[in-house]
Amino acid sequence: MTSFIFRRQAVVEFGNCDPDGTVHVPKFFQYFDTNTWMLFEAALGVATKDFNATFGIIPLVDVQVECHKPVRFGEVIEIASRVSEFRRSSFHVEHKIMVDGELAVEGGETRVWAVRDKGNPAKISARPVPEDVIARFA
Amino acid sequence: MTSFIFRRQAVVEFGNCDPDGTVHVPKFFQYFDTNTWMLFEAALGVATKDFNATFGIIPLVDVQVECHKPVRFGEVIEIASRVSEFRRSSFHVEHKIMVDGELAVEGGETRVWAVRDKGNPAKISARPVPEDVIARFA
Amino acid sequence: MTSFIFRRQAVVEFGNCDPDGTVHVPKFFQYFDTNTWMLFEAALGVATKDFNATFGIIPLVDVQVECHKPVRFGEVIEIASRVSEFRRSSFHVEHKIMVDGELAVEGGETRVWAVRDKGNPAKISARPVPEDVIARFA
Amino acid sequence: MTSFIFRRQAVVEFGNCDPDGTVHVPKFFQYFDTNTWMLFEAALGVATKDFNATFGIIPLVDVQVECHKPVRFGEVIEIASRVSEFRRSSFHVEHKIMVDGELAVEGGETRVWAVRDKGNPAKISARPVPEDVIARFA
Repeated sequence: MTSFIFRRQAVVEFGNCDPDGTVHVPKFFQYFDTNTWMLFEAALGVATKDFNATFGIIPLVDVQVECHKPVRFGEVIEIASRVSEFRRSSFHVEHKIMVDGELAVEGGETRVWAVRDKGNPAKISARPVPEDVIARFA
Repeated sequence: MTSFIFRRQAVVEFGNCDPDGTVHVPKFFQYFDTNTWMLFEAALGVATKDFNATFGIIPLVDVQVECHKPVRFGEVIEIASRVSEFRRSSFHVEHKIMVDGELAVEGGETRVWAVRDKGNPAKISARPVPEDVIARFA
Repeated sequence: MTSFIFRRQAVVEFGNCDPDGTVHVPKFFQYFDTNTWMLFEAALGVATKDFNATFGIIPLVDVQVECHKPVRFGEVIEIASRVSEFRRSSFHVEHKIMVDGELAVEGGETRVWAVRDKGNPAKISARPVPEDVIARFA
Repeated sequence: MTSFIFRRQAVVEFGNCDPDGTVHVPKFFQYFDTNTWMLFEAALGVATKDFNATFGIIPLVDVQVECHKPVRFGEVIEIASRVSEFRRSSFHVEHKIMVDGELAVEGGETRVWAVRDKGNPAKISARPVPEDVIARFA
């Protein structure tokens, strides 16, 4: 478990809610995805838009969400994210969404540390996560 | 594990893909969500739009996706879904996305069988899944 | 043209971009929609989540966007919005998205000032925009 | 106005609706975007996924929607699309969404016929729309 935690606050947008008046569950994954990018930007000091050129890509392979209570349109949420584990060429990020100080949603993502083949950008190869990247999250 | 399987084919839309040229992972959950509605419509013979009035609501509480291979813009996918387990007042749906006969993505959803409180629609109560509903999936 | 302008900055999210690496055009409308809610919250001092109970609803009936230059993943955008015209029971909002001080995207929305019928929430009736609401945007 | 019309039917998905219980207006643009791809596939006989390699790209520069009546979760919609005008290096597509035989939503898109620079894929140049492409829509 790394100790670097990224937190941001957001107001739940109308367009992220479904006819139940609560966040459409798939939308939580966009909150998570964006938080992972922000977490890496904060930890590594590399702007999101330069990440691919500097390091490579970090495609998602596995995501989960568990909803403990509904999150409604207009509520202020806090999304807190950290890398829970670095493995050889992948890593796991855990996300928590709090509303009024209570845990509302938990999520997890597994991502691969990878590069695109220069000749064939559709081809992706996993790479070991660099030691100095891991060090920035300690 | 129930035996009623709902399958549909779809062409991957441009607007569901991200800068990697592949389906943005959160979008898989909209494929799954829609397939669950279609599965229930097919099994129960009740139109999606009449479902709430007839039965109640089926909010998601828990979803997962595992990606085995990338799915690209314009590819034809087949999404197959079935209820893997009915519990007392919830159920689990499993989803598989095939591309060219190969398993590309697997997902799971847990949903609650519930009704809204008439006086306070923001209040939701779980209810036992009716026996005759379960019977239609056998 | 009212003089109250709401501005916010955002970093373009990965999940809002399409395989061209630029914002998927329909996503601009979610930026606009959210900015309209924020504009009204700022001008009227009523939290987004209390808007419906306090005033009613403001459904969109008409939207447009014109793209002058592509907006890319990770770029910092500024979205500026103001009511360009209040009519009897509707109003028009104009939106501008700037990147690096240059106008990248312009948009417009027409919305109705309306209430839901208490007996039949699917029925909506337009209402005159209250004078004191209009006054807050001057 | 060309005469080739592409029509498809869809059931309105839960995840495309907002807390008003109706289609979130920005989502209409994804219906339109997808219909334009399908229209070109139908007229030109080139699969969507091969379009870029065969012809180039067709980025959106301008879109509009006008809503005449709300479209609800679970309703069956028909989306009909055709090129209303080919200009030198751009074209305009008009879209109509019908519910129960009544016009519910109208939309329009302007797109550029373009290619990416081989050395710098972020650079896009407009090209004249080929005569034989235009001929297929007559």
